[in-house]
Amino acid sequence: MLQRIDHVGIACRSLEAAIEKYASVFGLAVVSQEVNEEQGVKEAMLALGGTPPRQPPAETPGGLAVPAAPSLSYVQLLEPLADDTPVGKFLARRGEGLHHVGYAVANVTEALAVIGGAGAVRLIDERPRHGSMGASIAFLHPADLGGVLTELVQPHGA
Amino acid sequence: MLQRIDHVGIACRSLEAAIEKYASVFGLAVVSQEVNEEQGVKEAMLALGGTPPRQPPAETPGGLAVPAAPSLSYVQLLEPLADDTPVGKFLARRGEGLHHVGYAVANVTEALAVIGGAGAVRLIDERPRHGSMGASIAFLHPADLGGVLTELVQPHGA
Repeated sequence: MLQRIDHVGIACRSLEAAIEKYASVFGLAVVSQEVNEEQGVKEAMLALGGTPPRQPPAETPGGLAVPAAPSLSYVQLLEPLADDTPVGKFLARRGEGLHHVGYAVANVTEALAVIGGAGAVRLIDERPRHGSMGASIAFLHPADLGGVLTELVQPHGA
Repeated sequence: MLQRIDHVGIACRSLEAAIEKYASVFGLAVVSQEVNEEQGVKEAMLALGGTPPRQPPAETPGGLAVPAAPSLSYVQLLEPLADDTPVGKFLARRGEGLHHVGYAVANVTEALAVIGGAGAVRLIDERPRHGSMGASIAFLHPADLGGVLTELVQPHGA
């Protein structure tokens, strides 16, 4: 079901400073930057590895709809839009650091049906919603997964 | 420098219970289990994806030295051997959850030289040490990376 680690989500106070840090220390480049009002974050995706980045969806200005590169993984930097957002509360409680892990799946709807049907893990999202770079995503409840906020990611084009 | 996310390290109170959880919910299987006295943990590596797991090194009973599968990533479950170990202190302070992220590199010695030379990030390990499944690893200081304990991983055979 889980194909690979798609990304780690890292909560930061300043997206700009975090991007600069990952660029200067590791040479990572931003391949997508967006504001997700629903999740209350502004975020950046930084591509790992030397292969071409996953393309933005056709709706994105200048983007082309092409199949996702299957082997890439990303660092996702997350700055909250406000203190009362999930990431804002995380920062207040725990400070900057690892916020969640996202695993790539072939079909997020099917994965949710399997996991939800088994009943051992509560679904934060009963059905997929919009994630970074046109992906379909869903979160699973950390209290049922040893404190790990876990995201399922069906990349755009997958 | 960073090729992909090799693994996420997850701190848990019971390795046995965590393995059972990831097996039952996601169908993940343990491909390596070991005790690392130096790091004060017993740990299990669970392979993501359908391709063959990274092979254990020749020193491991029954193992064969073959090149590492380059595209796999892992879930690493960590149970502390005692309360006064790094993972034991992490559990006491923050509870179960994401502990660190490990990025695959082609050469950990070279990566340490580049990062240490730049001076912006303190090295926990000045030189590589033994990690899971025969890998050479080194940790970078979380205080210089936005609270993220970061590991560099040169897989065995890479």
